[in-house]
Amino acid sequence: MLKKTLEINGQKKTVVAYADESLANVLREGLGLTGTKVGCGEGQCGCCNVILDGKLVRSCVTKFSKVPEGASVMTIEGVGTPKNPHPLQVAWMVHGGSQCGFCTPGFIVSAKALLETNHDPTRDDIRSWFQVHRNACRCTGYRQLVDAVTDGAKVMRGEMTLEELSYKLPEDGVIWGSEYPRPSALAKVTGTLDYGADLGIKMPPETLQLALVQAEVSHANILSIDTSEAEKMPGVVKVVTHKDVKGKNRITGLITFPTNLGDGWDRPILCDEKVYQYGDAIAIVCAHTQAQAKAAAAKVKVELEKLPAYMSAPAAMAEDAMEIHPGTPNVYFTQKIAKGEETAPIFEKADVVVEDDFYVGRQPHMPMEPDVGSAFINKEGKLYVHSKSIGLHLHAAMIAPGLGVELENLVMVQNPAGGTFGYKFSPTMEALVGAACLATGQPVFLRYDYHQQMTYTGKRSPFLMNMRYAADKEGKLLAMETDWSVDHGPYSEFGDLLTLRGAQFMGAGYDIPAIRGEGRTVCTNHAWGSAFRAYGSPQSEFSSEVLMDELAEKLGMDPLELRYKNVYRPGSTTPTGQEPEVYSLPEMLDLLRPKYEAAMAKAKENSTGEIKRGVGISLGVYGCGLDGPDASEVRVELNSDDTVTVYSCWQDHGQGADMGALGTAHQALRPLGLAPEQIRQVMNDTALAPNSGPSGGSRQQVMTGMAIKVGCEALLDAMRKDDGTYRSFSEMMGEGIPVKYDGKWTAPATNCDENSQGEPFSVYMYGVFMAEVAVEIATGKTTVEKMTLVADIGEINNRLVTDGQIYGGLAQGVGLALTEDFEDIQKHSTLRGGGFPYAKDVPDDMEVLYVETPRPAGPFGAAGVGELPLTTPHAAIINGIYNACGARITQLPARPEKVLAALQG
Amino acid sequence: MLKKTLEINGQKKTVVAYADESLANVLREGLGLTGTKVGCGEGQCGCCNVILDGKLVRSCVTKFSKVPEGASVMTIEGVGTPKNPHPLQVAWMVHGGSQCGFCTPGFIVSAKALLETNHDPTRDDIRSWFQVHRNACRCTGYRQLVDAVTDGAKVMRGEMTLEELSYKLPEDGVIWGSEYPRPSALAKVTGTLDYGADLGIKMPPETLQLALVQAEVSHANILSIDTSEAEKMPGVVKVVTHKDVKGKNRITGLITFPTNLGDGWDRPILCDEKVYQYGDAIAIVCAHTQAQAKAAAAKVKVELEKLPAYMSAPAAMAEDAMEIHPGTPNVYFTQKIAKGEETAPIFEKADVVVEDDFYVGRQPHMPMEPDVGSAFINKEGKLYVHSKSIGLHLHAAMIAPGLGVELENLVMVQNPAGGTFGYKFSPTMEALVGAACLATGQPVFLRYDYHQQMTYTGKRSPFLMNMRYAADKEGKLLAMETDWSVDHGPYSEFGDLLTLRGAQFMGAGYDIPAIRGEGRTVCTNHAWGSAFRAYGSPQSEFSSEVLMDELAEKLGMDPLELRYKNVYRPGSTTPTGQEPEVYSLPEMLDLLRPKYEAAMAKAKENSTGEIKRGVGISLGVYGCGLDGPDASEVRVELNSDDTVTVYSCWQDHGQGADMGALGTAHQALRPLGLAPEQIRQVMNDTALAPNSGPSGGSRQQVMTGMAIKVGCEALLDAMRKDDGTYRSFSEMMGEGIPVKYDGKWTAPATNCDENSQGEPFSVYMYGVFMAEVAVEIATGKTTVEKMTLVADIGEINNRLVTDGQIYGGLAQGVGLALTEDFEDIQKHSTLRGGGFPYAKDVPDDMEVLYVETPRPAGPFGAAGVGELPLTTPHAAIINGIYNACGARITQLPARPEKVLAALQG
Repeated sequence: MLKKTLEINGQKKTVVAYADESLANVLREGLGLTGTKVGCGEGQCGCCNVILDGKLVRSCVTKFSKVPEGASVMTIEGVGTPKNPHPLQVAWMVHGGSQCGFCTPGFIVSAKALLETNHDPTRDDIRSWFQVHRNACRCTGYRQLVDAVTDGAKVMRGEMTLEELSYKLPEDGVIWGSEYPRPSALAKVTGTLDYGADLGIKMPPETLQLALVQAEVSHANILSIDTSEAEKMPGVVKVVTHKDVKGKNRITGLITFPTNLGDGWDRPILCDEKVYQYGDAIAIVCAHTQAQAKAAAAKVKVELEKLPAYMSAPAAMAEDAMEIHPGTPNVYFTQKIAKGEETAPIFEKADVVVEDDFYVGRQPHMPMEPDVGSAFINKEGKLYVHSKSIGLHLHAAMIAPGLGVELENLVMVQNPAGGTFGYKFSPTMEALVGAACLATGQPVFLRYDYHQQMTYTGKRSPFLMNMRYAADKEGKLLAMETDWSVDHGPYSEFGDLLTLRGAQFMGAGYDIPAIRGEGRTVCTNHAWGSAFRAYGSPQSEFSSEVLMDELAEKLGMDPLELRYKNVYRPGSTTPTGQEPEVYSLPEMLDLLRPKYEAAMAKAKENSTGEIKRGVGISLGVYGCGLDGPDASEVRVELNSDDTVTVYSCWQDHGQGADMGALGTAHQALRPLGLAPEQIRQVMNDTALAPNSGPSGGSRQQVMTGMAIKVGCEALLDAMRKDDGTYRSFSEMMGEGIPVKYDGKWTAPATNCDENSQGEPFSVYMYGVFMAEVAVEIATGKTTVEKMTLVADIGEINNRLVTDGQIYGGLAQGVGLALTEDFEDIQKHSTLRGGGFPYAKDVPDDMEVLYVETPRPAGPFGAAGVGELPLTTPHAAIINGIYNACGARITQLPARPEKVLAALQG
Repeated sequence: MLKKTLEINGQKKTVVAYADESLANVLREGLGLTGTKVGCGEGQCGCCNVILDGKLVRSCVTKFSKVPEGASVMTIEGVGTPKNPHPLQVAWMVHGGSQCGFCTPGFIVSAKALLETNHDPTRDDIRSWFQVHRNACRCTGYRQLVDAVTDGAKVMRGEMTLEELSYKLPEDGVIWGSEYPRPSALAKVTGTLDYGADLGIKMPPETLQLALVQAEVSHANILSIDTSEAEKMPGVVKVVTHKDVKGKNRITGLITFPTNLGDGWDRPILCDEKVYQYGDAIAIVCAHTQAQAKAAAAKVKVELEKLPAYMSAPAAMAEDAMEIHPGTPNVYFTQKIAKGEETAPIFEKADVVVEDDFYVGRQPHMPMEPDVGSAFINKEGKLYVHSKSIGLHLHAAMIAPGLGVELENLVMVQNPAGGTFGYKFSPTMEALVGAACLATGQPVFLRYDYHQQMTYTGKRSPFLMNMRYAADKEGKLLAMETDWSVDHGPYSEFGDLLTLRGAQFMGAGYDIPAIRGEGRTVCTNHAWGSAFRAYGSPQSEFSSEVLMDELAEKLGMDPLELRYKNVYRPGSTTPTGQEPEVYSLPEMLDLLRPKYEAAMAKAKENSTGEIKRGVGISLGVYGCGLDGPDASEVRVELNSDDTVTVYSCWQDHGQGADMGALGTAHQALRPLGLAPEQIRQVMNDTALAPNSGPSGGSRQQVMTGMAIKVGCEALLDAMRKDDGTYRSFSEMMGEGIPVKYDGKWTAPATNCDENSQGEPFSVYMYGVFMAEVAVEIATGKTTVEKMTLVADIGEINNRLVTDGQIYGGLAQGVGLALTEDFEDIQKHSTLRGGGFPYAKDVPDDMEVLYVETPRPAGPFGAAGVGELPLTTPHAAIINGIYNACGARITQLPARPEKVLAALQG
């Protein structure tokens, strides 16, 4: 222990803490300055940046003992406050710099430190500063952050006033289609938004801190679990094992397809008989402090019989492979696709046939905020679980039977989430905190460290794909054949659904009259497969888009013109035989063409012997919604002060749920002339708001947006007087008219049949990507110099949100193409090891062109947005690499050694 | 448990807490908003005021379950911040509204709520608002708070700018004698200063929470202590009893006089054989949470044999009374006084003799902040004890042997203290937290609730006094005889010293040639006697000042003129035979006379049959320092940036130690032309700063002030070049001249002999009090309508501080005169029960007239200030009551029923 006097944000403070404690924890847990966030905890993300004696430091790796006596520390709380935000904070808001917002305090503190040494930095200065100081952002693609620093610096130099910088409501008061900053922005930029770990610190002192005992092997039988020594450790209240779990001790995927050979009850809450993957939870130590819980967890003795670990689909499909879940074959689900005529005869007769194998691997989500949650039992005996869940009602149903809790006694609440990108479509720790809470009767809190985040949350599922196109010599696609194996790890939840995505999206965007193929879901011992932005399409469309370039080459056609010839036009159908709802791809390609030609010319001009430059394009298509008749529900209520409250579970990864719902409701309620702040939101608590469905598949703007529209219209109808004016709350009361209205929406869509034919989505998003890349021939290192996306996501609700989603998705595409991986559990289990793209790994030059074709089944014409930018940016990059240097990469990621090998091979 | 979404200071926050938890704890421990303070915890002090949905509430008695979902809460953190303080906060600073500062957040929040409903309140509106909302302040006497609200409201109404309100440094840069706001003011008005309980919240999570097992009887033998059941309770780590205390398990008063019949080792840390008073600590439960510790404390079984409880000096002096500390007589110390000729012959011959008995009782200190402390062992194995101690080095020596710790391994640190008024001259919990820390090896934290604060900290010791004056018919005092018994409770620490004060201060201010008397210290079972502002003089001088009025009456003289005739003039000596250092009392009485005559006339004019009005005066004299050659030490260092650091243990009750030290150092260093902020202070940590002696007896401005002057002068001497300019730090380094200098000062004073003769103080403070009172004849209720004090405290360092000290001391005098008591342990153990003066119990009209006679032995002519205003304001009030209605009260407090009885008798 040490006592120091520090100057914290200009205030003298006496601080007493352990010498080995990190400055971050001293600030957060000690001083309650939870604006400083802890992301990776390993000095690789900069979320914890503070300014120590004038110097930017990562406080998670700065020990308290190393902080000089009398030192000054500036945290985000010292930069500005909600009432008096700093120009950088205002700039962050108006530029949409905060999506999930978890990295924001660290970035703003970093930017402040930069501006103290460089008053007028260039964009490259800013990007280099962030690169050197390892400020990591997973949401934004950095562009809007650089914009924000540039404008913040202008205000600080006196070249712009804060007033000029600040957002101004349009004169007509309409925020639909505007750049209105999201409601949570101010809290995010000032560090005052409480994420899960912040809430954990703020829970009552009786809250037990949890530590997991986890498997360090990938496949084993459990012989025994001995908790006796751990239970004697200081501060330990209980060590919870499977024996303490009252229910089925399994998490179920719920919506398992009828043809699935498994029953869906394959994922243990706490392992009982077997370990299925590295990181599997075996026991939970509940103690008074985190340090005590961790120390005791190390004392739990688990006796294991190691089994062969099947770390890929081919390994698990081998004839001699044992069943990972005894009684269920490792290949437990098969999905066929059959559209149009038989393809074999077509392939026999076709002018041109191309075929290739493709692999898109285990992209890790790498949110800035590691997984976190808490649980408690409320006054009425209901179990509350707080987590990053983006599917609250879904997860309640997935975990309730396993915990042995009646659904009506389980309340799920989403904490503000520091990014999920889909991994939280699966329950992660919800059942663990629930089990610990039920076993002890006390409030509990669990936070993963970054190794746990990487190793014990789901990953994008690798697809091994074989594809063939048949075309005539003019380039018209005649048929497609596909075969794909989905490595879904040991747990089946949604694995069948994902496999269906292969059928739906291989070849998407093109009118292909005949398709045959088969995909399968394979149980392995690698990381379990969870949702990841664009779910299934980055794998499926990577193969169809790279193969398209191979076809163009074989035909001697330009890749853009080949695509132009084949994209959806009236009369076309999707791979599932559905008529597209709009036909904007030709217009989009027309829009891109001059840019594409200019880029091609520029690439040629700028290529040298050492650096080859090239341009690649790709089509991206994704459906908004869960398959079939997806539904959503909200509630709309007129309040006594004539404001309106919208109740929804539009869960937020950071994509902007609050803004999506506000923008939609404000538009729907325009006849009332409400100011945005007169629309309140109660969100993301199953006890308070109805089931709006999970936040995945870019479904919320469409499904919940429509539900909000329906609910608001019902309210308006009730409020409308004969003269066309609207009743006030007191008039409604006076006339006995109800003020609460349900808004329900079911998508006009159908489920796919056994041949994958159907109309699974009522709204699609369309994109044309263009990547301009440079390849260093000596090393194989690829740099993406520019990304362009022509996007049709329908009418736009909020431009800050959509721009931000697109930049961020493109950045993740760069990572997917070039660096990101989770094949090697040890090597890839950090941000840097996992290939996280920092500021300078992503192009500053990203151009987005919107083609706003109104969607009939979307609210005010809107589609979704989040998945589109990650459908195929990597395919454009890979096509660009080929265009630059002739290296054809089909197995991602295209790390330099792989490109070099392709160049040399 | 409940989950709610609240709007805290304008920010939406999810809050999870127990339904029964107080809103104050949810804000403080949950949300880390420690600006909201918890004082009494019983809704009687308003320290915890917050604005809930627009309404002022006391958050300590507002349960979380009663806070509506979605409610808005404004705390002090939402009113303003250090960078952007609210006009009320600035007004509080410039008016000296924060002394200890503990009540400040609650007052400012309260004032904000007032101004939201009343933009232009009168002084009476403000005082009534504070009265109704029970905003309690023990330091300021409220006047400066009303000033602050008035000016804050002006700024809010636009009648004054914030700039106009703000403090401006004088053009010559001299802060000595100015109204420079104390350095801690900004932190206090913004709620960002961490007091002990705030630091407790900010300690590491491993910190054990302590709860005491305490005696609920006043005198008993301990037969057994059974901790077995408690040790099994949830969260309990250890139950510490006397068996776990490694040292002598006794606290010693250290400086016990040689003639004391006790050895000073009478106060147990944890009771072993006996209980000596109500509240005595018997065991300490160390648990993970406060609730767990308290629950387990209730399970400790203590078997007692009850003994007769001696609850007053006469009871303990009775012949059949047993020895409370076996082997030591209950009367364990006797102090004689003998000055001049034998008095018996003089009394026989005197023209006039008056005699009376007097009693001044157990005034409780009633600070806003209940006692609090913590302890930990640092990296090098040293025991750190943080507390409200105002005598750090003294307390270290008092507790080290009892704990069994070497003095060099014990570090004492003072937390910012929310008022002590002297009770922290005694160790309270220091040894308890030390024992718990040593027994567990873990950091520990202990906070008293208000009942513990009242019952288990020291109180002012009652004096039972008999006095006689002999005078000639012109009113010249000829002789005085005194007899006094000091009820010091069961613990002897400083009891002999206090008894000596009777000899020093009965008759102080007057030239009395012959004195004889005897005082004694009596051990009882009531609350132990600790220091309280003006220590000994409010008892001693009450009797001599009330008796002076009786003499005036008997002589038919005006009380002022009688005093004028007898006060010190050249040739006079004090009761201890010392020549006063200055003779300002005649001038002071001359200054008061016209005001006195006007007040007398006004009182007559305004008296009615129902309300009688009167005027009383009194003289107050007190010495600055511990008796005899008191010493202090500081260190002064030139820093590398040419600023200066002053190291001292000038402990702060709230009186303004930081300002006292800064003002003195700034004045001493004037040749360097430093701005105030260029003088840094390292204070109140025995590991970092030297022994400046305890903060009691108004000694610090004199003793430590002189030490600072000496240290600064040594530095200046070293820095001074031949040409009269000063070397910079780098020049000092270049020439190899040291930059650190000790400043040591020993007062030119002597100890009193066995006849109480000597020169115990080198500097005295002098005051003349005038009270204007109104007595309601039907009820006996007295209202003090105005207090006037003519004060000679030498040259003034800081006027905000001295005004504040005087107003606050006068307010405590009103309490001492009329309401305050701790005779009945149960009835008087709350603020209201103890007779705490709220805003309207204290006159708004308080006038201070300074006569600034420079003191030769004070720094830049300064004396102290803190004790003066509480020497005899109560005597003036009591004399005023007699003047109003003829009721002569000699036994305090003069509650209405006592006045009524005197009127009727």
